[in-house]
Amino acid sequence: MRVRTYVGPSDPTGLHRVLDERVVLPQAAERLDTRRELWPDEVRIRVERLNLDAASFRQLERTHDGPDGVRRAVLDIVAARGKMQNPETGSGGMLVGTVEEVGPDSPLGLEVGDRVATLVSLTLTPLVIEDGLAGWDGRSEQVPCDGYAVLFGRSIAARIPDDLRADLSLAVMDVCGAPALTRRVVESYDAPRVVVIGGAGKSGSLSLAAARDAGATTVGVVPTEAEAALLREADLADEVVVSDARDPIALRDAVGKAADVTVVCVDVPGCEGGAILSTAPGGTVVFFSMATSFSAAALGAEGLAADVTMLVGNGYVPGHAAYALSLLRAHQGVRDLFLRRLA
Amino acid sequence: MRVRTYVGPSDPTGLHRVLDERVVLPQAAERLDTRRELWPDEVRIRVERLNLDAASFRQLERTHDGPDGVRRAVLDIVAARGKMQNPETGSGGMLVGTVEEVGPDSPLGLEVGDRVATLVSLTLTPLVIEDGLAGWDGRSEQVPCDGYAVLFGRSIAARIPDDLRADLSLAVMDVCGAPALTRRVVESYDAPRVVVIGGAGKSGSLSLAAARDAGATTVGVVPTEAEAALLREADLADEVVVSDARDPIALRDAVGKAADVTVVCVDVPGCEGGAILSTAPGGTVVFFSMATSFSAAALGAEGLAADVTMLVGNGYVPGHAAYALSLLRAHQGVRDLFLRRLA
Repeated sequence: MRVRTYVGPSDPTGLHRVLDERVVLPQAAERLDTRRELWPDEVRIRVERLNLDAASFRQLERTHDGPDGVRRAVLDIVAARGKMQNPETGSGGMLVGTVEEVGPDSPLGLEVGDRVATLVSLTLTPLVIEDGLAGWDGRSEQVPCDGYAVLFGRSIAARIPDDLRADLSLAVMDVCGAPALTRRVVESYDAPRVVVIGGAGKSGSLSLAAARDAGATTVGVVPTEAEAALLREADLADEVVVSDARDPIALRDAVGKAADVTVVCVDVPGCEGGAILSTAPGGTVVFFSMATSFSAAALGAEGLAADVTMLVGNGYVPGHAAYALSLLRAHQGVRDLFLRRLA
Repeated sequence: MRVRTYVGPSDPTGLHRVLDERVVLPQAAERLDTRRELWPDEVRIRVERLNLDAASFRQLERTHDGPDGVRRAVLDIVAARGKMQNPETGSGGMLVGTVEEVGPDSPLGLEVGDRVATLVSLTLTPLVIEDGLAGWDGRSEQVPCDGYAVLFGRSIAARIPDDLRADLSLAVMDVCGAPALTRRVVESYDAPRVVVIGGAGKSGSLSLAAARDAGATTVGVVPTEAEAALLREADLADEVVVSDARDPIALRDAVGKAADVTVVCVDVPGCEGGAILSTAPGGTVVFFSMATSFSAAALGAEGLAADVTMLVGNGYVPGHAAYALSLLRAHQGVRDLFLRRLA
């Protein structure tokens, strides 16, 4: 790797801070330029906490000797790469901090002093740790941290509201793309039947609330009677169905009348066939689960001669964080399910 | 595995012919029931030729001793599983034959004597080989074969037209989902700019023709100057662009004005970021490439704050085979590109 001194204009994707010899996007880069000075469309954040990706933290715990070893590993990664991206898992996390400086051409609408969470991954965010992580015990993925991070023109950050617990806001923001995209899809149908697989989970409960607010009949699918009881209590679904979503025929039969929109929110592999079979011709399946297999979805629909539209759940929809927080405020049932998970 | 004797009614997915103890769809089954007698919604085909999936055939060639070993392997697989599904690659292929019997409740619209190609995979099609593959030299994925196969209520088969070479028709049918879905997406925009990555390929050239017929401005992206010359000659694209689609920034810059619809038709990994970056906010990316990574698409769009709709390319759209054949007839340029590939 040759270190470049880049003197050109900024690129909204952050390309100007990539130090690799080959031109790659910041997420794919080996190393980012962490200079403090901002390009005109950038924003600098004073970091207060890193939330490491859970899979990344577990990998670090397994391969390093005790909490001090884990702390050392995180410091080494960030020093070497200019970003927190675990080389083994490829994943990062998010951060919380306060806006320190806003470039004159930044399109993000942030102001100095705003307390924000970044909704783009740490894997593409230039980061400098200045306190040696002295305040972190190395035992949890919540990492108190003093330092700074840089947002690009096309980054996303959301203000943390004053009226909600910070951990609650962050948990909502983590999955905020799901209800926003669900709402958009639901609104393209007339009084649709919407089936949410994993309806008692975080993205699932928010998606049920979004669908109901948009006038849909809502069906929540959960794997156990215990989750069914919780979801009934939350009052977000007109019907609550217990089924193993990995069994296509069982799911189809449990759902009964086929859905106009099926939203897959459970992070287990093998739910593609059931979601497709539970959806009516002309309907839409939205896959939010990162366990979704592209080929299983494509070949599954073809093999079933299923005329359904299948969407890759995009985690970004304009206004998604504010919308998800508004759902949390409006639906006691969503709040209850989230608080239970945070407890 | 316990062999069941299923006596219930048929299921349009073919579930009634699955012999596995666990209830799975025919594609996931270890073994299918190949009885000659039809359930009322089924169709039996007299097989004339199998077209093995290319990846499957190469795997068989690598691991078996000579053409006789390959032939033996195919016979063993079909005898053991009741379908041609390579246990290593998981893939099958398609078949050509003549309709031998049509159940009274079949919804497929076929008649005895119709010469058809099946557009569902061999991985889910009950198949019996009756000639020991005596007419096959074991050296190509084109397998002359006498035997029978069964189609379910939800299967798809297309009549092979009399006015076209059979190999040409089959090559078109193999990718016929792409132009049909492209057309549907293009028609949801007003005079859109449509970028087809891999525009000189089979699904790519058909997608360009579909987009042009729907009133789009068409841009074809190809990897080399040689392909660019072929695509210019075919006169399907208003602009022809040479770029490596795996380099997101290069692709974005080569495409110039962002697309309303981007169609990914190249079977190489790593094209997700470039496709997303080349698409305007509010636009749609259709992924037909089986090399697409679900997580790369989902995380890529989120990391770029890209408000684009991303579709999993569904190989089934009603009427897709007839539509693709009509494009081939209407566009000399599409015919030229296909015939060149078959030569």
